[in-house]
Amino acid sequence: MTQPTRRSFIAKTSLLALGATTTLAAEPSKPMLTHHVFFWLKNQASKEDQAKLIEGVKTLEKIETIRHLHIGVPASTEKRPVVDNSYAVSELIFFDDVAGQNTYQDHPIHKKFVADYSHLWEKVIVYDSLDIS
Amino acid sequence: MTQPTRRSFIAKTSLLALGATTTLAAEPSKPMLTHHVFFWLKNQASKEDQAKLIEGVKTLEKIETIRHLHIGVPASTEKRPVVDNSYAVSELIFFDDVAGQNTYQDHPIHKKFVADYSHLWEKVIVYDSLDIS
Repeated sequence: MTQPTRRSFIAKTSLLALGATTTLAAEPSKPMLTHHVFFWLKNQASKEDQAKLIEGVKTLEKIETIRHLHIGVPASTEKRPVVDNSYAVSELIFFDDVAGQNTYQDHPIHKKFVADYSHLWEKVIVYDSLDIS
Repeated sequence: MTQPTRRSFIAKTSLLALGATTTLAAEPSKPMLTHHVFFWLKNQASKEDQAKLIEGVKTLEKIETIRHLHIGVPASTEKRPVVDNSYAVSELIFFDDVAGQNTYQDHPIHKKFVADYSHLWEKVIVYDSLDIS
């Protein structure tokens, strides 16, 4: 029984290796565009409105050109004059390229997000960066 | 000869599997803190000063608490009132946590970067976000 068992183990391990290799090979090319959005709420102190907006940002992740979506809130790093932690919610999205960001802007899910949640925010700042590193 | 050859192949494949698994397991936990810095230059139109600052930002990647470092320049996305593309260089760093960012701030490499390159910039804005996605 020893030999077949070992073979079975080896076969499974080999499949694992094949799977791992395939996954690595299938990964998309490195995204080159970061789209970082900072939202300030009308009711800046409202944890309820902050939670609602976070719920809204989460709906965006179904947009197919998004490679990674990070939702953030201000971190408790040291208070320094250059640090702006006055926003309520941040949304950091990686796209492959400018075209991916354009598709996102015009996407029905994004338009619905703006229609359903823009009453919550007072100010938005967007920084689009091309990755050169 | 068939059997040993196959065994040898399987042994290599198994090692590959082991290697892949080990790599995956050894990956750090998902970084939770994004530190996004935007720089405006004193000579905002100077491509030379922009290149110098990029060279400076690149020196930071040796700081051991940095999980990912993206260096960016303004992307050619659509001009909209909410988009600020007036900065010259952006630096997006992922840390595991606030402690990782604190280590970075106090690190000799970071202090040297500020000493050597801060004469180039006029304004800096920093956004530190805790990832909740």
